[in-house]
Amino acid sequence: MKKSARWVLHLVNNLSIVAVAILASSQVSADDEVMTAARQIFKAIPSAVPVVKDNPVTREKIELGKMLFFDPRISASEIISCNSCHNLGTGGVDAGPTSVGHGWQQGPRRAPTVYNAVFNVAQFWDGRAVDLKAQAKGPVQASVEMNATADRVINTLNSMSNYVVRFKKAFPSEEPPVTFDNFAKAIEAFEATLITPAAPFDQYLEGNPNALDDQQKAGLKLFMEKGCSSCHNGINVGGQDYFPFGVIERPAASLLPTADKGRFAVTKAASDEYVFRAAPLRNVALRAPYFHSGQVWSLKQAVGVMAKIQLGTKLSDKEENDIVAFLNSLTGQLPKIEYPILPPRSAGTPAPSLGR
Amino acid sequence: MKKSARWVLHLVNNLSIVAVAILASSQVSADDEVMTAARQIFKAIPSAVPVVKDNPVTREKIELGKMLFFDPRISASEIISCNSCHNLGTGGVDAGPTSVGHGWQQGPRRAPTVYNAVFNVAQFWDGRAVDLKAQAKGPVQASVEMNATADRVINTLNSMSNYVVRFKKAFPSEEPPVTFDNFAKAIEAFEATLITPAAPFDQYLEGNPNALDDQQKAGLKLFMEKGCSSCHNGINVGGQDYFPFGVIERPAASLLPTADKGRFAVTKAASDEYVFRAAPLRNVALRAPYFHSGQVWSLKQAVGVMAKIQLGTKLSDKEENDIVAFLNSLTGQLPKIEYPILPPRSAGTPAPSLGR
Repeated sequence: MKKSARWVLHLVNNLSIVAVAILASSQVSADDEVMTAARQIFKAIPSAVPVVKDNPVTREKIELGKMLFFDPRISASEIISCNSCHNLGTGGVDAGPTSVGHGWQQGPRRAPTVYNAVFNVAQFWDGRAVDLKAQAKGPVQASVEMNATADRVINTLNSMSNYVVRFKKAFPSEEPPVTFDNFAKAIEAFEATLITPAAPFDQYLEGNPNALDDQQKAGLKLFMEKGCSSCHNGINVGGQDYFPFGVIERPAASLLPTADKGRFAVTKAASDEYVFRAAPLRNVALRAPYFHSGQVWSLKQAVGVMAKIQLGTKLSDKEENDIVAFLNSLTGQLPKIEYPILPPRSAGTPAPSLGR
Repeated sequence: MKKSARWVLHLVNNLSIVAVAILASSQVSADDEVMTAARQIFKAIPSAVPVVKDNPVTREKIELGKMLFFDPRISASEIISCNSCHNLGTGGVDAGPTSVGHGWQQGPRRAPTVYNAVFNVAQFWDGRAVDLKAQAKGPVQASVEMNATADRVINTLNSMSNYVVRFKKAFPSEEPPVTFDNFAKAIEAFEATLITPAAPFDQYLEGNPNALDDQQKAGLKLFMEKGCSSCHNGINVGGQDYFPFGVIERPAASLLPTADKGRFAVTKAASDEYVFRAAPLRNVALRAPYFHSGQVWSLKQAVGVMAKIQLGTKLSDKEENDIVAFLNSLTGQLPKIEYPILPPRSAGTPAPSLGR
């Protein structure tokens, strides 16, 4: 039970909030009680781009970051861009189960979504990157993903005059402006704009009781009372802290491959074995297949699995459907993005390299 | 010489136009003579979407076609879309030399651009598809590219209700609306919008003598007088007819792999051995590397190769630079494209298949 001690604490705290909220509102309707409880546990996605630590989000950085996000020439093969695996047209993820990278290699985990990622406590399933600018450097250099090097990226960017001009504008006080750090900062600035406000659930949190239908409200109530919101809470309905996958019951090896011990690889703490960041559930209906292993294709099935292995509960068919209805209310408004025209290559641009 | 007889006829006809134009305008300036000749050989890209044969281009088809063009779930792996190889951010092509498809396989030829492809006489380097709706069916089913089947595509599209609704709107009188033919027609409608008007050369053809600078005008004059425009003419400065690659001199095997006999595979006529559609040169400066083999990375080098093997001419350094300056005037205004949000998959959507 040791590894799940923190989780139990969360569960108790969370259920207390629900209980206190309900007790404190004995004279109002059951509907109001649910809304009051929800507003203590969750938070609406803002409509404005959030502030990013150590990286003022300017228009110049956003536009540059968008180009870099969509530019496949950042990878060694020059066919894989950030958008290849974090496809903004399909919920900020790829088709799964795990991403395909350089040389048709399959990565070990499902791509996490970039949408609303700026609100997560840290990046990657195991939180090994403290923020998006740290995250952005990872896949570029991973041999199983883009298989490039920082030097190659810098050579590529410096070979295209339009990029050099844009880096100068985005980082006016830095010399040289084209650095791997600034590459990552520009991508972070763009990704900070990838937020999806105005989901029905946001409108509900902002005080409109009619933004959710009765089934979605029933699902929300279950989501809080059964304990789902003990881990999946806050602005991203998850993504705020780390928890063991398999608190009550160890998931099947297909869902929890034994070789991947999750956050243990980051902290080396025995209590972090098979611990992962709680999945952020914003837009989850757009993002099958589910879990870090990407082996469950139905949201309803995913809900059933989580209730069983994390909460020791067998949900009824109706309960599962109600929770799925609630999860569907987490689909927000995706930003409109103009596809960027990228600078043409020059004689100095490194040629694609397809080998390993 | 037999296989190049048609080419010689073209060259003579073309040079006659240049000569007649120059004779007919003996009282006007040399500048006017060049413009007059150019207007007989080339044609400006229109600013409006052209009419497409057997496929009225409606807003509904364009929007649907855009979604299909960007949707990787059309491929068996679900990671390759039309845009993967015909990247609208990089001139409508990939980084080359030849495209990478299913299983990291490399295709035999460089991806042709989709920009202005609607103006080509036929599609592919060998013209084996009569138009864009015929072309669109090819890569989807090619095992070396997207490795899907028509049935798989239809199953995928029918599994997503948003697609079914959009096909109904785009093809209101057809039952069922979701067919492989209509899939191809929608993509063709979108691709018909991928035209790039208002290049400096277009403005020049429309009567503005200052749209080209002196070097570009010198390059244009050379382009016509040396015989380049014998094959590279019309609205796309190429793409209008088929010619042998290596009229005067056989190119190196790296440029003309012996196993790929070009249009011979389509017509089985001996005279079509190593015959290819003249490359359309619109936006050519955005599209290195060059030739169907994609082995030449510099536009200047490509110009030198063509003069030598097609015309038997050794251009001076200045002549090559002038022609490159002219080719740079062929870069037009690329359309603004909003990246499409794609329908979420459902339980019925086929899972990705990465194997061969």
